[in-house]
Amino acid sequence: MKCEYCQKQNFEDIVCETKFWIVALSYDQTYLGRCFVISKRHCSHLSELSENEILDFLELVKSLESSFKKSFDAIMFNWTCLMNNAYLEKNPNPHLHWHFRPRYNHKVEFAGSIFEDNEFGKHYIRGIEKKIPKEIRNKIIEKLNLK
Amino acid sequence: MKCEYCQKQNFEDIVCETKFWIVALSYDQTYLGRCFVISKRHCSHLSELSENEILDFLELVKSLESSFKKSFDAIMFNWTCLMNNAYLEKNPNPHLHWHFRPRYNHKVEFAGSIFEDNEFGKHYIRGIEKKIPKEIRNKIIEKLNLK
Repeated sequence: MKCEYCQKQNFEDIVCETKFWIVALSYDQTYLGRCFVISKRHCSHLSELSENEILDFLELVKSLESSFKKSFDAIMFNWTCLMNNAYLEKNPNPHLHWHFRPRYNHKVEFAGSIFEDNEFGKHYIRGIEKKIPKEIRNKIIEKLNLK
Repeated sequence: MKCEYCQKQNFEDIVCETKFWIVALSYDQTYLGRCFVISKRHCSHLSELSENEILDFLELVKSLESSFKKSFDAIMFNWTCLMNNAYLEKNPNPHLHWHFRPRYNHKVEFAGSIFEDNEFGKHYIRGIEKKIPKEIRNKIIEKLNLK
């Protein structure tokens, strides 16, 4: 099973990069600013990270949480490291990544779009996707100013 | 808002402890061995962790994943850091903790109980709780042998 992440030449909608991680805006913006945080090295379990990789991750967590508070008044953040989908394949070969969901106790109007976190204080919902135009995606990345 | 974790004198069903973290078996064993990994120090966001705390966490991740593979043939692991519920309170004061869910592509029979991960390869389910007797909880902790 080839790894789709490792084969990818370019990620779209990059929010920022560190030595060991790439942050890309998710296709789904149900929660304004939802991102994937992807390991640059192929590994499959959280336990495979090196000390340098997790320390770099901690710095990244600090940058992201701080920037989302400043830029969009995000209140708190859901971090998940799952990799479930890879195990639907015959020969699973997951590539380590995090799901980052900023959460809001208020409506956010940004670039003409309205974002509402109707489940604030509860588990994130799944199964619905909020797609937004490329120009608004670019504006979100610009506003975060992490590049 | 007082912190219920900080006020707790003793956690039940402790799987292991490190300098900075306590691991306690969850009330819910839908996924055999589900645990809470609780910071010993009061903090509210992942970004507030120190370098030493995250390095200690990484060592703990390695111990837990390794022990669950050996003890119960767990295939992979879902790690989540959410803290949503605290924000349902008037003055939220979340205490940092992780949810750890081992996942299985096979039925596990242990101490006379059967555990099945019917959603393997998919997001964990919520809303149902599998309670098991205290004696089986103790046997799970014993088998993990992490104390």
